[in-house]
Amino acid sequence: MVLVLRRFRSIKSEIRVLGIDDGQFVPRTKGSVDVVGVVYRGGYWFEGVMRTKITIDGFDATEKIAKMIESSPYYRELRVVVLDGVTFAGFNVVDISMLSRIVDLPVMSVVREKPDLEEIRGALKNLPGFEVRWQAMRNAGILFEVEPRNGENPIYIQTAGILREDAEKIIRKTSTRSNVPEALRVAHIIASGLAR
Amino acid sequence: MVLVLRRFRSIKSEIRVLGIDDGQFVPRTKGSVDVVGVVYRGGYWFEGVMRTKITIDGFDATEKIAKMIESSPYYRELRVVVLDGVTFAGFNVVDISMLSRIVDLPVMSVVREKPDLEEIRGALKNLPGFEVRWQAMRNAGILFEVEPRNGENPIYIQTAGILREDAEKIIRKTSTRSNVPEALRVAHIIASGLAR
Repeated sequence: MVLVLRRFRSIKSEIRVLGIDDGQFVPRTKGSVDVVGVVYRGGYWFEGVMRTKITIDGFDATEKIAKMIESSPYYRELRVVVLDGVTFAGFNVVDISMLSRIVDLPVMSVVREKPDLEEIRGALKNLPGFEVRWQAMRNAGILFEVEPRNGENPIYIQTAGILREDAEKIIRKTSTRSNVPEALRVAHIIASGLAR
Repeated sequence: MVLVLRRFRSIKSEIRVLGIDDGQFVPRTKGSVDVVGVVYRGGYWFEGVMRTKITIDGFDATEKIAKMIESSPYYRELRVVVLDGVTFAGFNVVDISMLSRIVDLPVMSVVREKPDLEEIRGALKNLPGFEVRWQAMRNAGILFEVEPRNGENPIYIQTAGILREDAEKIIRKTSTRSNVPEALRVAHIIASGLAR
């Protein structure tokens, strides 16, 4: 399959961003966890919400998130997807390259701390399906550091289907209240709040 | 009991507003409906979310909403509560005077269309507990028209524990994207989106 790299002519201030995060859960339990998607127009305006469930330490994160996006009423207006890291519900790894190809949108993973890949690799080895999970982690590609616009701590991103410079511009434009895009900040609050 | 009328010395631009709305449900069913509360700082910043369940056409809306507010981590920071009307989950009526006294906060009900009280009274007569529901409706008090700041259509409010002029100021300050406070606009989107 060919990976389509989308080049943005211009990044509108009200670009539709989908931020995705998962709720907390009790470690070492079985079952599923809610994943929440929040649509913002740029860095100020809440526009919509969507939800799916994925299996704790399972393999369905990429597929379930793709289905959630495609079946939402906001799908056609979305321009970029931003994930809180690539591991959801424990070690249910999202393959951002595959997700980007399925939904035909640029996808970014954003984290606040530089991940220790060797530590993650060690943890994955304790779980069934190591090769599949590790491949999904590797498919996330190079980790870039991004300086946010407001002098806060840098963040780290991995991207699929988007140029690094466009990804950085989108992050700076939509991170109005913290060092991550508003859609992602709010998805985190809702996913955590509903799990409580 | 004495109704405390809170007078605001000044209304901060980042005043913490809790907006509350319910999800959709299939009419003429039994069971419960999710009620979602969203905390905004003024008209721009999403801060938190909370949730409870109330009975369709039941009598527990006031009590359940009060408990949701009091048990939330945002309670002490809240300055005002804004409801989408006073009837939730069918005709489970919120008594805003009682709610205001229980949680010790000003409460406003906001509607976009002038309610037809005689029509509502007729509908309530078909349900058990007519007197209790009708009394709660009457306790909402006088309906005021408020001109929003952006020249959109007027809205109608009922208030408890707050001066009319302060209520109007808060609405104008926090209705940044529509003719109702952002907390309420977003509570509506989340309650509807999660019920889908």
